[in-house]
This record gives sequence, structure tokens and C-alpha cells, in this order.
Amino acid sequence: MVKLYGFPPSTCTRLVALVCKEKEIPYELIPVNLAKGEQKQASFTAVQPFGQVPYIDDDGFVLYESRAIARYLSKKYPNQGTSLIPSDPKAEALFEQASSIETFNFNAFVAPIVFEKVFKPRRGLQPNEERVTELLGQLQSKMDAYDLILGNQKYLAGDSVTLADLSHLPYGTAFYGLGAGFADVFESRPNLARWWKDISNRPAWLAVKDGA
Amino acid sequence: MVKLYGFPPSTCTRLVALVCKEKEIPYELIPVNLAKGEQKQASFTAVQPFGQVPYIDDDGFVLYESRAIARYLSKKYPNQGTSLIPSDPKAEALFEQASSIETFNFNAFVAPIVFEKVFKPRRGLQPNEERVTELLGQLQSKMDAYDLILGNQKYLAGDSVTLADLSHLPYGTAFYGLGAGFADVFESRPNLARWWKDISNRPAWLAVKDGA
Repeated sequence: MVKLYGFPPSTCTRLVALVCKEKEIPYELIPVNLAKGEQKQASFTAVQPFGQVPYIDDDGFVLYESRAIARYLSKKYPNQGTSLIPSDPKAEALFEQASSIETFNFNAFVAPIVFEKVFKPRRGLQPNEERVTELLGQLQSKMDAYDLILGNQKYLAGDSVTLADLSHLPYGTAFYGLGAGFADVFESRPNLARWWKDISNRPAWLAVKDGA
Repeated sequence: MVKLYGFPPSTCTRLVALVCKEKEIPYELIPVNLAKGEQKQASFTAVQPFGQVPYIDDDGFVLYESRAIARYLSKKYPNQGTSLIPSDPKAEALFEQASSIETFNFNAFVAPIVFEKVFKPRRGLQPNEERVTELLGQLQSKMDAYDLILGNQKYLAGDSVTLADLSHLPYGTAFYGLGAGFADVFESRPNLARWWKDISNRPAWLAVKDGA
């Protein structure tokens, strides 16, 4: 069974758990308590030199970086559960395009907003509201392009769901939950709102969104 | 022939040109002048909705996002030029791990530093030195982990060069050129310095580093 070393509230741990659910891959979660700094202990960094969760141990094969793990598991079981990465070269290229869009045009703005508004307060720190406003402004024009793309096709890489769509869920859900001014970024754009409702209601996500 | 729509001084355009050189793929560069805002014109955003360079037109197949293009071209010609993406599943997973490391533990710090110190001054704006200092501090511990990894293996995904290594070159070169305080991040770590010297002297990079 895949051993998942992670922290249940961690967004990156949840991405891997989500992929396991979508692909019907049994996994055992081995908790690494970030609140206690366990990811910075020598026994952990001997495996993951950056001191970050999650990593997996798949029958002796150790792999870290959540998006790399998600791809590895999706490709290892192509015909089990939901197909998440297309095998046709051009469809795969459009999946890669969508994955990069998620990383550089979504996550690059949404993750630091979630860091300021969720993770900092958990540690008793004040969010930098000026930075949040700046990031939110930059995100708006990116989401206009999302709305355009999602007006022409059902999902970000075409008409089938892929890992690129699902990769938006952990940070996107935390962002959406920040309140009306944040949820409106999705809700005010009809195609984006339709897509978000679709992916955020997938049974696999509902099963892990409150903890991997 | 692959048509590359891009801006020669752009880091992302250079990544695609670099991959074309490594893979011995002829390409025609069609200039999009960012200084004149051509990437925001309707004729451009009709193809690339985010208004960003580069994109390619490969015999009618249009693709954007430089890392997606780099993967597509590397996979289309697996046995031509340098092999950049391994085909064995575990080796491919370690390549994906290395690619994510580049994106989240290198580019996430180096790109905004280059933005502050290179791109802002080009537009007559002042760099935010406080932000540069903060990012540089965060980068240091990531580079300690790089040095550890590169002490155990020749390249970031194992003992063969991959696209994950080459992806560091465009932003890494701009960062390295900022002066001693920046170059020292690489030079003060022996394994990282050895790796950087190796990849940054590849003939394909020397051919495109001053313009795609």
C-alpha cells in the first residue's frame, strides 16, 4: 500500500490524497506534524531535503513534490479510477499547458493569499493586507482568461477533467472560503463558476477536503 | 518548421529556443515586442488568452506555456538530440520531482528577484530592495538542499541531464549576473557551483543566452 507521509490539513498532502481517491488507490497516511516542526527533523530531511510534506513510499520507491507524486500515481494506474492524464501526445501537451496555467497563473497568486490569510493567523501572525490586495488584483485578469477558456471547453485542458483541474482544489477551496470578496472572483465569472462548482463537488474531493 | 512566437530577451522564450537547440529542432522566431505591448493586442490574446509569450505553432498545433512546450518538443523527438525526459516510469517520476523543485524551490524566489532587479529598472521603476532581501534569504535554505542533492548525484533528477536542469538556465543566468551577492549563492556551495558551471556552459545555452 502507498504510504503517504503528510499533514492532513496541508494543501499539498490533500492533493495526493485526492488523487489516490480518484484513482481508487489505497493509501496509509503517516502523520507528520507541521505544527510541531516534525518536517524539519533530521529523520525527515534525510528523505526530503527541503523539509516539506508530503512524500510517498510506494513499495520502497520514495518520491516527493505533490504534483510529481500526483502524476506518478496517475500514470502508474492509467485504467483504474478516473483517467487524469491523457496519453495522446497533443492531448497530453494541452494537459501540460493547463498544468502550467494552474501553477503560474493561479497558484502563484492564490497560494500566497492563503498563506497571508490562513497560515499566518494560525501562527499568531498578522496578514499583510497590502500584499493580499496586490495579489488579488493580479489574479483578477488571470481569471478573465480562465473564464474565456472555460467558455469554449468544459475543463482547462479540453472537454474531459484532468489532474490540471483537480490541482486547483486544495488551495482554491481555502481561497474560496476566505469570504465574499474572494469567492466573488469565481462567482462573478459564469464559466469559471460553473467549472468550480463541478470540480469542487467531486466525491473524491468532498471525501478529503477537510483532512487527508 | 516550428514557429516560435516570442520576444528574444524573454526568459520563457529562451527556454523554448534552448530546447529546440538541444533537440536539434529547426524553428523560426516570430518576434512579439513586449516593450511595445504586442502581447496584449487582440490578435495575440485571441491565441494566448493570458497575453504572455511564448507560444508555438507546430504545423497548425498551437501550444503555450514554455514548460509545456518544452515537454511537448522533448517527447515528440525522443531519439533526436539530447534525451531530456526519461521514459522509464520511476526515472520519469524523479524528473517530475526535479521539475517541481525547479518551479517551487528555485523559480518561485529567483524569478521575482529578477523581476525586481532587471525588469523593473528596464521600465524605469525602482526595485523593492526589502522584497529582494526577503526572497534571497528564503532562497538560501533551498540552495542548501540543492547542494545536498547534487552531492549525491550529477544532476537534479539523477546522473543524466534532463529538462528539469535546463529549466533553471534562463532565470538562473539573469540572477547570477546580478553581481557578487547573487552569484555567491551558487559559488559558495561546491556541488551547486559544479552543476551550474556544467549546465550553463552547454553549447545550446551559449547559443541562445543572449537572445532566442
